[in-house]
Amino acid sequence: MFLKRLEEWADRNDSLLCVGLDPDPGKMPERTRTGELPLFEFNRAVIDATCDLVCCYKPQIAYYAGRGAERELKMTIEHIRRRRPGLPVILDAKRADIGSTSEMYAREAFDIYGADAVTVNPYMGMDSLKPFLDRKDKGVVILCRTSNAGGAEIQGLKCGDKFVFEIVAEKAAGPWNYNGNVLLVAGATQPEELAAIRKIAPETTLLVPGVGAQGGDLEKVMENGLRKDGKGLVINSSRGIIHASSGPDFAEAAGAAAQKLRDQTNSLRGRNRTSRSKK
Amino acid sequence: MFLKRLEEWADRNDSLLCVGLDPDPGKMPERTRTGELPLFEFNRAVIDATCDLVCCYKPQIAYYAGRGAERELKMTIEHIRRRRPGLPVILDAKRADIGSTSEMYAREAFDIYGADAVTVNPYMGMDSLKPFLDRKDKGVVILCRTSNAGGAEIQGLKCGDKFVFEIVAEKAAGPWNYNGNVLLVAGATQPEELAAIRKIAPETTLLVPGVGAQGGDLEKVMENGLRKDGKGLVINSSRGIIHASSGPDFAEAAGAAAQKLRDQTNSLRGRNRTSRSKK
Repeated sequence: MFLKRLEEWADRNDSLLCVGLDPDPGKMPERTRTGELPLFEFNRAVIDATCDLVCCYKPQIAYYAGRGAERELKMTIEHIRRRRPGLPVILDAKRADIGSTSEMYAREAFDIYGADAVTVNPYMGMDSLKPFLDRKDKGVVILCRTSNAGGAEIQGLKCGDKFVFEIVAEKAAGPWNYNGNVLLVAGATQPEELAAIRKIAPETTLLVPGVGAQGGDLEKVMENGLRKDGKGLVINSSRGIIHASSGPDFAEAAGAAAQKLRDQTNSLRGRNRTSRSKK
Repeated sequence: MFLKRLEEWADRNDSLLCVGLDPDPGKMPERTRTGELPLFEFNRAVIDATCDLVCCYKPQIAYYAGRGAERELKMTIEHIRRRRPGLPVILDAKRADIGSTSEMYAREAFDIYGADAVTVNPYMGMDSLKPFLDRKDKGVVILCRTSNAGGAEIQGLKCGDKFVFEIVAEKAAGPWNYNGNVLLVAGATQPEELAAIRKIAPETTLLVPGVGAQGGDLEKVMENGLRKDGKGLVINSSRGIIHASSGPDFAEAAGAAAQKLRDQTNSLRGRNRTSRSKK
């Protein structure tokens, strides 16, 4: 069960932090850019510096596929397995298609790359997600309200008295969650909408991108997104951590940035825990 | 310009047919399953048998990525280039993400695989599509109303007096089409909604999946989808053509199936042309 394992690692590393492994060679120090496996070598150092500070990793497949470096993505995930066996890996791929094609995408994420969870796009409806949802032991992270500027264009359309993203949240937490393995993406850049999603899906774990480079407010995210048990959030940061420095100290800088964000998150979590228990 | 080239090939081969290259080893004859490059060898024979009957090809990336066979996808596209230089290739990938990630996906489709167009998902809004739309010379095929059973779940939500897919069609044919390189996916299984899309986007070329294995009605598609000039449609068939036979005659069978569907389409096109010119 993915969600159980995610919580175990959140407890074990006392962390809600997810580090996004989206390496950009333009921001990597020169010495890591010249080898035969530059993305892997870079990731390896970042993983070694952060693997006791996170509840999961989230490599974004486009950063590998866009360079024909699928092999380095595979090696990156294998390195996580070696360093911390069992630490969850979410493949960020935002897939979905008709059923027979989604079945192949599920194989890509879970069998070829060995990911524990994958991000998917709900626009084509439940049958396009079924091949992912059917994999009981895996997590399925459904886009709900994304952190980008144009996220509202379709997701924020009003259908009767509900927004499209609210209907997605209802379906995802309801009928689509027949195997209890659904998570939702809720961007940090829209704290009110994060609160609306938490209300609709009180038990669902939310993956929250947009803290850091995209400008989301961590304090509001914690206030609006935490579950009653003080869990149920995965705070993702990619560039803000892995490219905290573009110098030779990039790994140490990544470790320090991860530690800082983990500690900030925990301090806000403590505050919210206390205020909640008082209510 | 992708659309210009697509029309040139539609004229040259007198065809609105797109063959989907989504090879399923379970349906391939045994002798093509045993080699080192089974998907490529299979596709090569299918391409050789159909390349004068189509206006484009559409390989679905999941069928390669789900087997770790990205190299065979690349070789397949290169084979099309060798056989018929300039014949358009649409990579079916249904990508989209925040801008910096979509930029990497655009590189994947256009630079790594050398595709002429790519399918994309509109759920994250215009900025997630911009890196694709910015590539003026390439086609961007935006999901609008898909052919699968669950397609209506989100796409068919009513927002005021419009459905979500109608709003997508408006945006796609309007502000998103700033480079004149947008196409729309409109499934054959919903002929009324195809007609609605044609009304909203009278000039837009529609890629129509769902004829054949998925049960779409070709006659209604032609009636409701053709542009006034008797063009503007790309009729996709995948399994119905490439797996027309699972025996050693699979390539001949694919050629025959492609010829049949091309001719049916042209005959219906002729009829609609005549009836339109009478109006």
